Amino acid sequence: MALVDQLDIVIPTIRNLDFLEQWRPFFQPYHLIIVQDGDPTKTIKVPPGFDYELFNRNDIERIVGDKAWCISYKDSACRCFGFLVSKKRYIYTIDDDCFVAKDPSNEDINALEQHIKNLLSPATPYIFNTLYDPYREGADFVRGYPFSLREGVPTAISHGLWLNIPDYDAPTQMVKPLERNTRYVDAVLTIPKGTLYPMCGMNMAFDRALIGPAMYFGLMGEGQPIGRYDDMWAGWCSKDLAWPGWCSKVICDHLGLGVKTGLPYIYHSKASNPFTNLRKEYKGIFWQEEIIPFFQQTQLSKDSTSVTACYLELAEKVRAGLGHIDPYFAKLADGMVAWIETWQALNPDYEK
Amino acid sequence: MALVDQLDIVIPTIRNLDFLEQWRPFFQPYHLIIVQDGDPTKTIKVPPGFDYELFNRNDIERIVGDKAWCISYKDSACRCFGFLVSKKRYIYTIDDDCFVAKDPSNEDINALEQHIKNLLSPATPYIFNTLYDPYREGADFVRGYPFSLREGVPTAISHGLWLNIPDYDAPTQMVKPLERNTRYVDAVLTIPKGTLYPMCGMNMAFDRALIGPAMYFGLMGEGQPIGRYDDMWAGWCSKDLAWPGWCSKVICDHLGLGVKTGLPYIYHSKASNPFTNLRKEYKGIFWQEEIIPFFQQTQLSKDSTSVTACYLELAEKVRAGLGHIDPYFAKLADGMVAWIETWQALNPDYEK
Repeated sequence: MALVDQLDIVIPTIRNLDFLEQWRPFFQPYHLIIVQDGDPTKTIKVPPGFDYELFNRNDIERIVGDKAWCISYKDSACRCFGFLVSKKRYIYTIDDDCFVAKDPSNEDINALEQHIKNLLSPATPYIFNTLYDPYREGADFVRGYPFSLREGVPTAISHGLWLNIPDYDAPTQMVKPLERNTRYVDAVLTIPKGTLYPMCGMNMAFDRALIGPAMYFGLMGEGQPIGRYDDMWAGWCSKDLAWPGWCSKVICDHLGLGVKTGLPYIYHSKASNPFTNLRKEYKGIFWQEEIIPFFQQTQLSKDSTSVTACYLELAEKVRAGLGHIDPYFAKLADGMVAWIETWQALNPDYEK
Repeated sequence: MALVDQLDIVIPTIRNLDFLEQWRPFFQPYHLIIVQDGDPTKTIKVPPGFDYELFNRNDIERIVGDKAWCISYKDSACRCFGFLVSKKRYIYTIDDDCFVAKDPSNEDINALEQHIKNLLSPATPYIFNTLYDPYREGADFVRGYPFSLREGVPTAISHGLWLNIPDYDAPTQMVKPLERNTRYVDAVLTIPKGTLYPMCGMNMAFDRALIGPAMYFGLMGEGQPIGRYDDMWAGWCSKDLAWPGWCSKVICDHLGLGVKTGLPYIYHSKASNPFTNLRKEYKGIFWQEEIIPFFQQTQLSKDSTSVTACYLELAEKVRAGLGHIDPYFAKLADGMVAWIETWQALNPDYEK
């Protein structure tokens, strides 16, 4: 499955990319977009032989200009800058502490290949198929599944999972410091229409043409390098709120696109510090209790027929519906608008 | 997990129950309710050592009386008679061509034990957890899952799967005569609220106290032994429409109960004849195209706060909403009402 010319790999990082050595057999044919997080004067070493572009904060400021504040700083949410500047149809994004996992027969898992399979086969959001992805070899729709739905819908997002360190929040990390995910679940499934899920950006692929503008990772991180918003930004939820997951799922449901989760697994090597995480997450832990019902109830208008239109409508709904929680959400709504304006400026032919 | 006094195993059958020999280590402690389908003058042999009751058509007529027509004849849908007469809290129902499956480490799978685990742990219908059942050992809720939903809801139904012969409809059987399910997916998951799934009665357990009256298997089979309804019954969809799955899921969603699917697997030994199946199924194949949107749109009233009330409301909705498809649905609505009246007559303390 040679998609070399149609897929970019986006990696947010603050360190040398030694982890790429292990991925070499799988990633080397592809173009990498490396988004350097944090101090732009530091040098990121990329192992030789990879085709890549590296963007640091100075590049982001230069390219995005006066809307660069909408790209997070000091948080892996900065990865979405890579989605903006890619010119490819498909994106795979992976964290730099994710290694090649083994399947139960001890073979290296080619995560990228599985994501591509997931994206290139349809999804089935309207009725749950009990044998999981009906398009996989050896599977099909079970008895009782309506024939009119068996064509499926285009798959926009492929959400992969993690062996070893699971993506737990700080309280769960603290309660279960030794828990490791060792269960290899050999399934891909469509998350049904109307159902939300906590999306993790650690190992995830999407069809940029179908859903790209919805993959904004929000305003996270510990402050803005340009220093103008420090007061406003201090003390907000500074760790990934699973924001792009809620937004993109609502939009996929509205536009008739599918979201798959399950295979492939990567090996997540290292738990981040739960104490640091608790500090970064604790506001989000409260906020998500209101954010999720908000997204569950959100209905986009029939007039919003493109991803950018949906996203702009959602931004206004966020401003109106979540603004009472914290001034953060008005700023986030501004960020969502700035993101779309930036997307349109950098991708003038998108949705044309 | 000794639930011997709280669970009955219900088996519909037309043949000698030799398959029980293989299940002996797992089933022998439990009480079996065998529902003999077809000619009541035939003798069903049960291997020695099992504690069982056997009900044939004459018994059904005697016990249910003038509403016995609501219990299907010449179809495994007759199994629901066993649900009526059980006095236990939990039911496990299995087909007589289902054998003990092996897990990937070649161990015999104790299907009943897994069903009990599924039923005794909560379900999570409101947000999808990407690591599947968060209550399983080694798993939990992932980051982003709201804490207010982590108690879950009571699990009403545990839907197990099948290795070897998958539960395909006749057209799929014909197109893929050699397809066997060999994929062991080590997962249990909650089917989200608002999402339907094609339920298969081959390997399924439920909490009779929570959802029993919704587990009516409808009017299937090839005619009534008492001969009074032959004209009306001839030519309808005579094979399981996955009816109890649609009804019970709508009611579980309404009442805040959970439905799980996935583990355990049984080994399904024999595909039924696809030509016979096509004849039995073809009306259902058309009908389900309307039945499923009907159930997707059905909203039960807030006044229906018990399973029996929900089911009676659903019966009237079926009569009003599906009657235009075929006179069968008016009769089925009558059957649904007769079923509830029978349930209440035989279980006077239910919901008291």
